[in-house]
Amino acid sequence: MEVVSTPATERVEIDLGDRSYPILIGEGLIDDPAPFDAVPRSTDALIVTNTTVGPLYAQRLAATLAQRHARVHTVTLPDGEAFKHWQTLNLIFDALLERGCDRKTVLYALGGGVVGDMTGFAAACYMRGVPFVQVPTTLLAQVDSSVGGKTGINHPAGKNMIGAFYQPRLVACDLSTLATLPPRELSAGLAEIIKYGPIADAAFLEWTEAHVDALRALDRPALAHAVRRSCEIKAEVVGQDERESGLRAILNFGHTFGHAIEAGMGYGEWLHGEAVGCGMVMAAHLSQRLGLVESGFVDRLSRVVERAGLPVRAPRLDATDNAGRYLDLMRVDKKAEAGEIRFVLIDGVGRAVVRPAPDAVVREVIDACSAG
Amino acid sequence: MEVVSTPATERVEIDLGDRSYPILIGEGLIDDPAPFDAVPRSTDALIVTNTTVGPLYAQRLAATLAQRHARVHTVTLPDGEAFKHWQTLNLIFDALLERGCDRKTVLYALGGGVVGDMTGFAAACYMRGVPFVQVPTTLLAQVDSSVGGKTGINHPAGKNMIGAFYQPRLVACDLSTLATLPPRELSAGLAEIIKYGPIADAAFLEWTEAHVDALRALDRPALAHAVRRSCEIKAEVVGQDERESGLRAILNFGHTFGHAIEAGMGYGEWLHGEAVGCGMVMAAHLSQRLGLVESGFVDRLSRVVERAGLPVRAPRLDATDNAGRYLDLMRVDKKAEAGEIRFVLIDGVGRAVVRPAPDAVVREVIDACSAG
Repeated sequence: MEVVSTPATERVEIDLGDRSYPILIGEGLIDDPAPFDAVPRSTDALIVTNTTVGPLYAQRLAATLAQRHARVHTVTLPDGEAFKHWQTLNLIFDALLERGCDRKTVLYALGGGVVGDMTGFAAACYMRGVPFVQVPTTLLAQVDSSVGGKTGINHPAGKNMIGAFYQPRLVACDLSTLATLPPRELSAGLAEIIKYGPIADAAFLEWTEAHVDALRALDRPALAHAVRRSCEIKAEVVGQDERESGLRAILNFGHTFGHAIEAGMGYGEWLHGEAVGCGMVMAAHLSQRLGLVESGFVDRLSRVVERAGLPVRAPRLDATDNAGRYLDLMRVDKKAEAGEIRFVLIDGVGRAVVRPAPDAVVREVIDACSAG
Repeated sequence: MEVVSTPATERVEIDLGDRSYPILIGEGLIDDPAPFDAVPRSTDALIVTNTTVGPLYAQRLAATLAQRHARVHTVTLPDGEAFKHWQTLNLIFDALLERGCDRKTVLYALGGGVVGDMTGFAAACYMRGVPFVQVPTTLLAQVDSSVGGKTGINHPAGKNMIGAFYQPRLVACDLSTLATLPPRELSAGLAEIIKYGPIADAAFLEWTEAHVDALRALDRPALAHAVRRSCEIKAEVVGQDERESGLRAILNFGHTFGHAIEAGMGYGEWLHGEAVGCGMVMAAHLSQRLGLVESGFVDRLSRVVERAGLPVRAPRLDATDNAGRYLDLMRVDKKAEAGEIRFVLIDGVGRAVVRPAPDAVVREVIDACSAG
């Protein structure tokens, strides 16, 4: 459980048969050609980035990749969850076709979760599939969204409703890119780190509680440990259930309530990690009301979420029937089946279960958690 | 080689491991629940059809499926290759989300190749993948596009540029639906039947030459044999190379020139099968000029294409540099690699090879084949 100083690049393997790939975690990876040795050589490469991250890192990555690809193109998307839709995705296809990119072209996602999800989905669809690499520059993307092969875009009626399971060839987490991350985004990433303890590893929750201040202060060994351990837990779960037929759903702890918050507020209003942070607190409350955990766990989780700089009070989504609005939004979640909402609940710290819950109890939780 | 009368439903297996599925070929399948026994049960089903086929068959199929699904919804798309784009695809997603369809929902493609390609792609992407079934109602879809798992939509810069390899759970070819097919569409389907002989089975080319009139007259035993043998050959090729890394490309005989014709004329001007028919004649010419086949084969292929009611003279795509325009269009084909066009050529009847060809020779072929 001790944090060891790690100047060297760390490596976590995602084991998915012929779709296996490594996650590399280290400093300065985007300036070093070596981490990209695992990527297939090709004439063309396309860096997909956004207006915030592109000016900081795209030229540096392009210079590094020039050693592997004869032509390195870049396309810059508008930044934010609000642009995670078909029109933006089409900018990637337009760029590929305008530049005559063939089906060996490698796509590189340079940015956060939105860039990663859209680049992965574009790679899944362009000419029915080209290779892609994740170069996540946000903490959230490094510990969660870039790992596991979920890609996609939003539909006005729901988040990530259109997408594919499509694995990258490599995830390169350059910790030095976190230095330019706004504090609010850093906190959003901490939500997903906090998530892994309750669902899979009680000791990691303790570690997170002890190091939340160090993580917010960008302490490098703490970050390296948090990213590695998060990726390890995610890798283990994804390796057992790539296409989310069962176990993998536990990674959505906090996400059912969280998606309702994001959809109800309008995508982009709350950051995904903020919604997940608050959603975990709500899911903990629900677990407690269903007799799965003690109330002490709810307090403990609320405290670490709050210390991470994340909201713990749920926003009101409707003036007259707030709980009803939450329930409606949760019923169109992908995890719902025939209109039945399936919640990820904590059944003792370190163990998650997925099950439905009575509407009346869910309403109580929403009322109890909602901001006055 | 004799055609046997086949009142019973015939079955061809596509062997792709855990993605294997059967093709059923028979009469009256859309009115019979039995063929659909292989489809997973689910609360919701969505029939995707178009404005031409829907009025003829959608209600009948819905009545049959009502025995397997509590709710059978229908969405009707505009008809034609010109609508094979994102906006039309989105009508499917809108229908699924408006009706609260979850990720066990089964999609049924009822129509020709365009409906099948779009339904399959929508199924691949909706909530990252739901099951789908092909119910092809055109000869072209029955012998080619519904089999093999290629799905997708067009981009202004190229045909089928955005898509997925995604296998159906079942293909149900109801031969009785061909009775309502316009003669021009029937001819377009014959192009793909004619294709299988030259690339894989010299005896089947002889059979096709002997039965082309019977097929145009909708002779049922002839149709049953042609559909079954076409599906068998396609199944064998796809089973060896699901994702088109090599062998599968031979199924694109005639398609490289054909795609240039379709793109150059504007999608929908020539039917896909018409472009492929003419494209096969051009590819045969190219094979002969490269010394792979005798000129007798070129004449033979031209004759059977013409007898099928298909064009054998290539349209002019540009008034000043017609061959240059063909070459430009072929270079953005998915099968091109780093700008090099890879042609499917006939290396003796029943055997196809994939290789590049000198631009000068390709220009000669285009000039020789082009209409006055």
